[in-house]
Amino acid sequence: MFENIMQQVKETTPLVHCITNYVTVNDCANAILAVKGSPIMADDEAEVTEITSICSALLINIGTLNKRSIASMIKAGKKANALRHPVILDPVGAGASTLRKETTAQLLKEVKFAVIRGNISEIKMVYAGSGTTSGVDANVADTVTMENLDETIMFAKKLSRRTGAVITITGAIDIVADADKAYVITNGCAEMSSITGTGCMLGAIMGAYAGANPDNLLDAAACATALMGYSGELAKERMFGEFSGTGSLRVHIIDYLSCMDYELLSGGIKIEVR
Amino acid sequence: MFENIMQQVKETTPLVHCITNYVTVNDCANAILAVKGSPIMADDEAEVTEITSICSALLINIGTLNKRSIASMIKAGKKANALRHPVILDPVGAGASTLRKETTAQLLKEVKFAVIRGNISEIKMVYAGSGTTSGVDANVADTVTMENLDETIMFAKKLSRRTGAVITITGAIDIVADADKAYVITNGCAEMSSITGTGCMLGAIMGAYAGANPDNLLDAAACATALMGYSGELAKERMFGEFSGTGSLRVHIIDYLSCMDYELLSGGIKIEVR
Amino acid sequence: MFENIMQQVKETTPLVHCITNYVTVNDCANAILAVKGSPIMADDEAEVTEITSICSALLINIGTLNKRSIASMIKAGKKANALRHPVILDPVGAGASTLRKETTAQLLKEVKFAVIRGNISEIKMVYAGSGTTSGVDANVADTVTMENLDETIMFAKKLSRRTGAVITITGAIDIVADADKAYVITNGCAEMSSITGTGCMLGAIMGAYAGANPDNLLDAAACATALMGYSGELAKERMFGEFSGTGSLRVHIIDYLSCMDYELLSGGIKIEVR
Repeated sequence: MFENIMQQVKETTPLVHCITNYVTVNDCANAILAVKGSPIMADDEAEVTEITSICSALLINIGTLNKRSIASMIKAGKKANALRHPVILDPVGAGASTLRKETTAQLLKEVKFAVIRGNISEIKMVYAGSGTTSGVDANVADTVTMENLDETIMFAKKLSRRTGAVITITGAIDIVADADKAYVITNGCAEMSSITGTGCMLGAIMGAYAGANPDNLLDAAACATALMGYSGELAKERMFGEFSGTGSLRVHIIDYLSCMDYELLSGGIKIEVR
Repeated sequence: MFENIMQQVKETTPLVHCITNYVTVNDCANAILAVKGSPIMADDEAEVTEITSICSALLINIGTLNKRSIASMIKAGKKANALRHPVILDPVGAGASTLRKETTAQLLKEVKFAVIRGNISEIKMVYAGSGTTSGVDANVADTVTMENLDETIMFAKKLSRRTGAVITITGAIDIVADADKAYVITNGCAEMSSITGTGCMLGAIMGAYAGANPDNLLDAAACATALMGYSGELAKERMFGEFSGTGSLRVHIIDYLSCMDYELLSGGIKIEVR
Repeated sequence: MFENIMQQVKETTPLVHCITNYVTVNDCANAILAVKGSPIMADDEAEVTEITSICSALLINIGTLNKRSIASMIKAGKKANALRHPVILDPVGAGASTLRKETTAQLLKEVKFAVIRGNISEIKMVYAGSGTTSGVDANVADTVTMENLDETIMFAKKLSRRTGAVITITGAIDIVADADKAYVITNGCAEMSSITGTGCMLGAIMGAYAGANPDNLLDAAACATALMGYSGELAKERMFGEFSGTGSLRVHIIDYLSCMDYELLSGGIKIEVR
């Protein structure tokens, strides 16, 4: 599973234009490099269309929004759409402020996304921002569990139909869905939320995976999700010893991202189709 | 000592709004997560009051000032004051430029701080900026030693009386003082100044500690200071082997921040009341 | 070789003013500290001339340009020139957009650089931007090999004559040249390009080396280049074990930068004069 998806990334070294937050930007760059893509960070309005033009994919992450970067996101997004480059949206903290809510809604209106990745709360904000009616009408729960899994998958498929994007909901259980098919992935470990950037890094490597596999976005997003989750799982196993903590975990996650190949991933991936 | 202080942080997972520099912002986020708080970085004027409102504390760090962020700092600071959230000031390089001096003075005028943390030079700039008379009238020495310790403690207490904030002066000897009481902490190691961010990380974890202990700011600041210092000390001990350097030290400091509990800290804390 | 150059850095702790990108800024700060310099990051127009005045050298890195920082770069550059502080240019991605091309040309016109560091493509853009005639007339190859080495050295010397700067071209083979003399350095490892920031860190430590050795810029730049390359080489050797990846490599490069002394470097440096 996903052998060809991974192969494509390694063979094409996709260049990913990232307009992202300044908190985890270094992790995003190193994560893209680790999976054999190549990152370019650029957010000035004067250069974003040119930078996007030389890339294979565009990542828009709203983690530390400001007015200057919002204009750049829209400009770059429109250009990437015109060139048919996949655009990834990472709506970090979409519900935390009016600015983030409105920017998410504006982005959804002006840019067509190939993949949208967030936790369930963020994805519910995307759902609210994507419709013509106002208000959050997504009545799924705020944590994805085995009990509400079917319902959440239905929600993800519905949102995919509405936006045209592959929807990735990450958490203890990850869901990657288009309108018709969903993958459920249970790799990862709880400790991944003890460091900043695991979500952002996944958005970033999705840029590389979607850029190299523009005609197979569902599998590209699912493979990136499994890759990130399994790297976290293996990194945790390396936290043996008395005082191995979250500093080491972060280093080891990037180690495993860079070492992961098809054989290693195949041995650990926990995925099913729904 | 401080068992309840630490307990409160772990039980409440305080959300800390950080307006901080782009050099060490990732370290600050990971440090807050390591001590079981939760960070949000946001600096656009359009969202800072909302973000601060959903948090327990606000950190203002002037490490890479710009005009855009100064306005956001003041706006967020006033809102946090109105909501009675503790606000931490980290006046990085306060004496290095007129912009930093004036911004420090302006912040002190417009925002009430719960904790102010800096090295002795920075704290002297705070003193200069906090008074109605101009000029630096703090005639304490530029390095805290056992010889000038009493004098420096008096200075810290005086500045605390003037500003209403707990004053934390960090260096080889750390002083944490309110108007009446001072803790002297001698944890830490010289190598901590060989990496960027140890001061900023302390400011950040003080956000988590003050946010979870708003009624006990002196002990919260002292506990955070000891936690950081002892983590640095333990991280240094792990630098065995021929070529363990500052890259590893940085990783291990975050490791120890994340592993530290009351029992471990109790075994290593070097603190006295003055 | 270079014993005195290294000695000068360790004895003077040169303060380096960095106007750099937000992707690798933390690595740059830690790299400068690792080699016993001291970094200050500041990019607001209101403070850059003051900050530059208290430093020994200025680094200008165009990795994440924006209009605000361009004005600051020029202002700081002119001040550093007036004070005869060495200014280092790191024209990251100089050819990737019109903004970067034009900014590179503008910087070359308004600021006199002591050292310019880039890969061959970036240095060719510098060449194009440095002349009175438009267009790239540097017809050297896009990869430096043993076959085109002589030709590339000639190109570097010519560009040094034109700009007055020591030219450093980094890649599998590094060239450090002034108008008359060139060093060829073959330290380093291919894996250094699997992490972000190795080029930027070299630019940063060049700031420390040039700041401490303003009268011997060629040797300062060559020593910094060898130091970075050999640290990468040693870091790679430490990547034993099955799953040591690029996360660890990054940590270990900073470890070796901080451990490197004259004796260690002498045992591993691969350099010749051409």
